[in-house]
Amino acid sequence: MDSSQFRAAAHAAIDQVIDYYENIESQRVVSAVQPGYLREIIPTTAPEQGEPWNAIQNDITEHIIPGLTHWQSPNFLAFFPANSTYPGILGELYSAAFTSANFNWLCSPAATELETIVLDWLCKLLSLPACYLSTSSSGGGGVIQGSASEAIVTVMVAARDRYLRRLAKDAKDDKEREKIIDEKRGKLVALCSDQSHSSTQKGCLIAGTKYRAIKVPRSSGNYGLTGATLRAALEAAKKDGLEPFYTTVTLGTTSTCAVDEFKEIAEVARDWPELWIHVDAAYAGAALVREEFQYLTEGMERFDSFNMNMHKWLLTNFDCSCLFVKERKHLLDALSITPSYLRNEFSERGLVTDYRDWQIPLGRRFRALKIWFVMRTYGAEGLRNHIGNCLEVGKVFENLIRGREDLFTVFTTPSFGLTVFTVNPITGDQKARNNLTKEVYEAVNADGEIFITSTIVDGTYAIRVVSGNPRIERRHLERAFEILVEKTNEIKAKGAHTPPIVDMENDLKGISS
Amino acid sequence: MDSSQFRAAAHAAIDQVIDYYENIESQRVVSAVQPGYLREIIPTTAPEQGEPWNAIQNDITEHIIPGLTHWQSPNFLAFFPANSTYPGILGELYSAAFTSANFNWLCSPAATELETIVLDWLCKLLSLPACYLSTSSSGGGGVIQGSASEAIVTVMVAARDRYLRRLAKDAKDDKEREKIIDEKRGKLVALCSDQSHSSTQKGCLIAGTKYRAIKVPRSSGNYGLTGATLRAALEAAKKDGLEPFYTTVTLGTTSTCAVDEFKEIAEVARDWPELWIHVDAAYAGAALVREEFQYLTEGMERFDSFNMNMHKWLLTNFDCSCLFVKERKHLLDALSITPSYLRNEFSERGLVTDYRDWQIPLGRRFRALKIWFVMRTYGAEGLRNHIGNCLEVGKVFENLIRGREDLFTVFTTPSFGLTVFTVNPITGDQKARNNLTKEVYEAVNADGEIFITSTIVDGTYAIRVVSGNPRIERRHLERAFEILVEKTNEIKAKGAHTPPIVDMENDLKGISS
Repeated sequence: MDSSQFRAAAHAAIDQVIDYYENIESQRVVSAVQPGYLREIIPTTAPEQGEPWNAIQNDITEHIIPGLTHWQSPNFLAFFPANSTYPGILGELYSAAFTSANFNWLCSPAATELETIVLDWLCKLLSLPACYLSTSSSGGGGVIQGSASEAIVTVMVAARDRYLRRLAKDAKDDKEREKIIDEKRGKLVALCSDQSHSSTQKGCLIAGTKYRAIKVPRSSGNYGLTGATLRAALEAAKKDGLEPFYTTVTLGTTSTCAVDEFKEIAEVARDWPELWIHVDAAYAGAALVREEFQYLTEGMERFDSFNMNMHKWLLTNFDCSCLFVKERKHLLDALSITPSYLRNEFSERGLVTDYRDWQIPLGRRFRALKIWFVMRTYGAEGLRNHIGNCLEVGKVFENLIRGREDLFTVFTTPSFGLTVFTVNPITGDQKARNNLTKEVYEAVNADGEIFITSTIVDGTYAIRVVSGNPRIERRHLERAFEILVEKTNEIKAKGAHTPPIVDMENDLKGISS
Repeated sequence: MDSSQFRAAAHAAIDQVIDYYENIESQRVVSAVQPGYLREIIPTTAPEQGEPWNAIQNDITEHIIPGLTHWQSPNFLAFFPANSTYPGILGELYSAAFTSANFNWLCSPAATELETIVLDWLCKLLSLPACYLSTSSSGGGGVIQGSASEAIVTVMVAARDRYLRRLAKDAKDDKEREKIIDEKRGKLVALCSDQSHSSTQKGCLIAGTKYRAIKVPRSSGNYGLTGATLRAALEAAKKDGLEPFYTTVTLGTTSTCAVDEFKEIAEVARDWPELWIHVDAAYAGAALVREEFQYLTEGMERFDSFNMNMHKWLLTNFDCSCLFVKERKHLLDALSITPSYLRNEFSERGLVTDYRDWQIPLGRRFRALKIWFVMRTYGAEGLRNHIGNCLEVGKVFENLIRGREDLFTVFTTPSFGLTVFTVNPITGDQKARNNLTKEVYEAVNADGEIFITSTIVDGTYAIRVVSGNPRIERRHLERAFEILVEKTNEIKAKGAHTPPIVDMENDLKGISS
């Protein structure tokens, strides 16, 4: 493909992308293909000779697009969103064109420096404590990770090593130090609310530590972790001979968008100085661009790290998980393979940043470009308006649900554009409610006009509807509500139901990232 | 940015990309900016109002491009390459447009299914043993990872868990199982040649295990790991009370493109069935598209996993690290948080693949598109020709170096387009050779017309020149040689040199990914 062929191909691709976005509402939101559909169409080996672009593009239209689930559709109300926008796409285009391995500053100084700058922009925009700025006196700063899961493994490894190092700090020599660490390694445990995203549990699988979920009771209309509950869990772990080294707290849990009690947990942090506390704000952290939510960041300077995914609700295509740490030296201590006697003030204090030591991979893409393009194209005002619109249409939906108390019950306090609710059975107990809710949920998704998800919390099966799409309007939620009412009435009219075979645990897997 | 603004912006961006590629040779290959250059130019906060595309694009031209090191330039002869091509860029564009979190099949069936298909294409193209195909009887298959480092951590975690599970297999109950695992966890050790890439050492930092580098002596003109050396190291580790669970072997080491003795190591594997053996072919694996190298894959069915990075030498922009495993169940056992009683034959045997359980992150991009575009645009023939051209011009360079025995000494057997050599001192020992080589190396890079890297192996400081760029021609290597001769003569003419302050360890960091 020479330059003129590329120009023609790229123009055709751009036209196809525009067409895709402009007509996305007319597509069935969830792909209807069957497992293995593509293997029946595509050859089993690579072609021997090259093919022209129009053959490839034709196959995108014919075979790939039908196999997509349309996350960019305003009828996609499932999981959490994965926003993509035109300026973000341009960022990805330039990043690919400027390909560089970017494992150190010299690989492409612009890639490192722009990342530091736009993450400082974001830190201020979200009103995070100043300790998370690259210029902070604590030596903090931000870094782009691929996903919240990667961000969590990364800080968990830093936490694990900080904990073990401190445990062994009084060892008289290296041999004794190694012995202490070898013995204690198997006793490390990370704890978090049972409402935390599964990435903390997976993080433990990777870092090789134990994991304990803390059962969180309902309080103030949702399932936030309180200081007292955390404290009790830490004490219990210690009593069991374990070494609690890490906790994830959440701003907007996956199931119900609960917010843990940060102020109370900040008090616990005071008494457990060796415990690394990480704030997972993957989805709801985007709302911090709006002043009315910024009170939530109070006290966060007591925590060690924070992440929010711009690739969820902040208009920047996957992957773009923004991780902030209070003291970057803990990342370097755990992940740098440059021995400490070669470290220098310039590297650690930010004259030159080598982001390879802030992450699991060595190489990295130039992802700062898409953040830069999105923030400049929308402006802070545009970002706030986008979130504001999503919250407003989310409220419309909540009110519609509340207006039909005969049919639906709001389960947890709606927040961040998420409404979680159940369907009222005509008669019967919680089991009848669960079964009916699941039946309605499945019937709605089977139709495919909209896509929603469900969850199970505290024994309740509930439907989740999230309004996080940049193209979403009041009418999309009104139509979603109409569908829910129709399906509920249809199912209720059928009378006695065969209880569906419920494989509930499986429904919960893979929500969010 | 509405659709028509996007079309205009994208056309302008495409023109800029074409202009960038067509004129890349005229740019100084390594950026000449000073640390902190961008912070002086870019505002410290995000703009309040949105800006038009032309303001952003103007800043790319003025402020970003001068801060790039041009990895796509045929004068970039450093590290290993990071190829990017037009069809790969189009793949990235579509991937961004079709953004979906892709953590399970239903998220976008096309994303999962195309990945399985194109990795099978690649497996065949590289002539890997059939056990690495998704359709193999061992339950193998390929998955796209972000980098070789991620691939290595992923298989290391699978190896660690397989090893611990087997150690505890005779435990009488869960409590005893946990006790055995807790005690042995601190004794696990991964071993590999001291010529292996640093990602194995970093993998150990993440997985929380010990790491031992095996000192590899020179044999047959390079520094490949032999079966006997590996066997001795495993026995020594065992004698020290450690539990060797994992080894990386390399096809094309970072410093000198050495190839470990796979056939001998396959024999060691027979005696150490609990040891996970991973082949890191990150760079040189691309050469397997050519028949003359395919003998190297003989015996690889005795190993557990293999990775090669299409984003290095196979025309597909970063990130695109292709990992193959012989038995995917070990990945699922270690990384899936779906409890085993919920697993089913369909998921494990490939009717539906959920790639989230094959990797560290949960979400993932639709990277199969770019592989598909590249393979179809070039065809197998085009890929072989690209590698063939790089090898041919690499040979030209090798011969030029060999033709000046008065000035240069070839250090290790040149292979895979890499020539490693030293500069001959007029008089003096190895130290004089090292210092002179380093002085020439630094002088060449300071000029900036070409970019090369250096390494230290077995006490020798050597220059590495790699010809892995798709735009590279004979003339680029001839010119590189000319520059090397000129600089060598200039430096020699100056007479006695102040030995440079050598911070050699630091020079070695960050080679490759």
